[in-house]
Amino acid sequence: MVKVDLSGAKAFFTGNGPDYSAAEAAHKVLAERSGAGADFLGWPELPAKIRETELDRIVAAAEKIRSRSSVLVVIGIGGSYLGAKGAIEFLRPNPGPGDTRVLFAGNGVNPDYLYDIIGQLADRDFDVNVISKSGTTLEPAVSFRIFRDILSAKYGDEANDHIFATTDAKRGVLKSLADANGWESFVVPDDVGGRYSVFSAVGLLPMAVAGIDVRKVIDCAVKEFKALDERSESNPAWQYAAARQNLYASGKKVELLACFDPKFRWMAEWWKQLYGESEGKDKIGIFPASVEFTADLHSMGQYIQDGERILMETVVRFDECMTFMEVPFVSSNADGLNYLAGRDLGEIGRVIEDAVMEAHISGGVPCMTVSVKKRNEEGLASLVCFFELACGISGYMSGVNPFNQPGVEAYKKNMFRMLGKPGAV
Amino acid sequence: MVKVDLSGAKAFFTGNGPDYSAAEAAHKVLAERSGAGADFLGWPELPAKIRETELDRIVAAAEKIRSRSSVLVVIGIGGSYLGAKGAIEFLRPNPGPGDTRVLFAGNGVNPDYLYDIIGQLADRDFDVNVISKSGTTLEPAVSFRIFRDILSAKYGDEANDHIFATTDAKRGVLKSLADANGWESFVVPDDVGGRYSVFSAVGLLPMAVAGIDVRKVIDCAVKEFKALDERSESNPAWQYAAARQNLYASGKKVELLACFDPKFRWMAEWWKQLYGESEGKDKIGIFPASVEFTADLHSMGQYIQDGERILMETVVRFDECMTFMEVPFVSSNADGLNYLAGRDLGEIGRVIEDAVMEAHISGGVPCMTVSVKKRNEEGLASLVCFFELACGISGYMSGVNPFNQPGVEAYKKNMFRMLGKPGAV
Repeated sequence: MVKVDLSGAKAFFTGNGPDYSAAEAAHKVLAERSGAGADFLGWPELPAKIRETELDRIVAAAEKIRSRSSVLVVIGIGGSYLGAKGAIEFLRPNPGPGDTRVLFAGNGVNPDYLYDIIGQLADRDFDVNVISKSGTTLEPAVSFRIFRDILSAKYGDEANDHIFATTDAKRGVLKSLADANGWESFVVPDDVGGRYSVFSAVGLLPMAVAGIDVRKVIDCAVKEFKALDERSESNPAWQYAAARQNLYASGKKVELLACFDPKFRWMAEWWKQLYGESEGKDKIGIFPASVEFTADLHSMGQYIQDGERILMETVVRFDECMTFMEVPFVSSNADGLNYLAGRDLGEIGRVIEDAVMEAHISGGVPCMTVSVKKRNEEGLASLVCFFELACGISGYMSGVNPFNQPGVEAYKKNMFRMLGKPGAV
Repeated sequence: MVKVDLSGAKAFFTGNGPDYSAAEAAHKVLAERSGAGADFLGWPELPAKIRETELDRIVAAAEKIRSRSSVLVVIGIGGSYLGAKGAIEFLRPNPGPGDTRVLFAGNGVNPDYLYDIIGQLADRDFDVNVISKSGTTLEPAVSFRIFRDILSAKYGDEANDHIFATTDAKRGVLKSLADANGWESFVVPDDVGGRYSVFSAVGLLPMAVAGIDVRKVIDCAVKEFKALDERSESNPAWQYAAARQNLYASGKKVELLACFDPKFRWMAEWWKQLYGESEGKDKIGIFPASVEFTADLHSMGQYIQDGERILMETVVRFDECMTFMEVPFVSSNADGLNYLAGRDLGEIGRVIEDAVMEAHISGGVPCMTVSVKKRNEEGLASLVCFFELACGISGYMSGVNPFNQPGVEAYKKNMFRMLGKPGAV
């Protein structure tokens, strides 16, 4: 389980501080499925359920793909993209020589981007995992047409064997296509929204192809959700949800998610969708942004330290790095760094984390930390389960339905009309 | 030159709208070097100056590196990192088989990240470009120690021939080391701050190694800065600076820089440093954030459409894509997309851009556009010169010194004390 530390935010709390009774009430509504959006509350049970149903088949399909293809093209957008992308960049960002690379298409219609992916395929063997609840979302559907053409040209009648569809269990265009063409298919659950779907086949198949031990991730996630069901002020999800709502009420309108490990960059993108899409509605919501330290201390650091005081900061920390590396000793000591010689970079990094938070707090930015032991499968499961639950609680505390996204339709409506889709108005 | 379109922001302007007389006054202060930070106003002349001084030597060094090494490790942070990273990801993100890859180290001390870069070097030939005005900034200095060790182990006495230093012209630790060891060195100009240095050797050497035609970039930039010196309301830098200050005054505290081309992602990071570090001080400043469309319409789209109304949006547009790609025709039309068959993805993308802006404007988000013809060398020069000048004007309009960054010192001071640096307090 993650550990949340609110000591760096304490001086900024208003009123009676974080409202744990409101967090408790929100947790109750969530657990009893008695609030708005209750039809999309399948995610706390998802890890246990997937282990009983599709996990073996996901792992087998991934092994098949890994054994024969050097690339997997994943076609999905939003929740059908960011979870897997985040997890892969977090745990397996640099494929080794024998690994299958996972490339993401379908998250846009930019032809230069697609051209690059096609160029990276070259004459390599590849598979396609198309992910869409309906099969009619424009961006992935357009990409899928293009990659189906490439598969057909390359593999002829065998092309169907190279397509894996993750879609609705029973209905929809993609499900029909999968059945008609014999594509192996996996389920996008009915009771889980896209941004909560990373522990379904949506996220797990690409993750497994990239070489992540998804059984371990799921085993950990099952335990995590169980532990997070605790109803007390020591529940880190309550702490985080209640603290950020208190800070938001006092005018901290932007939450910066900061991490000192560059491999967290795409997990932060996943987090931005989770929180932005869940809470940003009805003209309210904390605006989610992210920074990568220490790099961004030399770009956004000035603003954070001394710009408009609308920021709160949440630092994701790891107790240990995966690698041990020492600062070398240099006899001339021209750069004056010998006081660090022989010290582990990971340890130096943790000192810097403390130094940065101390600076930001003194500059007027409340800092919370969310820490896990390591950047490994267990750490991934802990972070995902924690952020998912805290998001639901925080959303209910703010009074919105955290599980819908009505605002996403506005551009689609305009788009279909302007593109001349038959029947669009 | 870029074209700025403010029509999507018009309904949101307050008072008498954008204050062009204030923009004119700010431009005058900037051109006459009569305001705060005037010692750092060398950047408008930088392209012309570099062409006369170091450009030939930069190109020659890049050719040498390209001809012998498959990797260039660039060691720098902040302004010594984001310009080159942005430009390379914008123009040459996918090195071909014969190209030299540019990897960035030195922008942090995370050992897992450095370990990965070292792993990518494997037994390949490589060069190092270390970029630091002083040579004592902690993160790049630590990395440089590590990569010097690797170079020495690999090349012995020849290691010095593989190091290129971009540093102060006359003084500092790195300059002394370069002189003592015979490293070829290039200049970090005295009168240009890090975030404005992309058209010095800081940005140009890595860009040239990546295969970017830096002579073309610089030729275009010389013309751009000349054209942008126009003193009238048709100057796009006045338009953008005055519009965003008007919107900020009315409560739009966050500016989202949006682009529909994923290759702009790192240019947006460069832009965030430029604006965040220039304007975020004295407890004021627009908070800079970025989104990549259409991908992020399925993550941040909900918030943008319907969250707290503190956003303004600036969309970077390209009149043309570099690639032509058609939507394939599928006889079954199961996905219902045949109404798009035969149409160019670039054209479809531009329709979507219009659809998205219409949706966001109707949701209460003022939208500005900044457009250039293409994502090529000329487009890069146009965008960089425009954003640099507009930033200086906008900063002066808001009353701050846009060319300092006093807030960056706070974490460093804590860090040196907590790490036990001799003499630190």
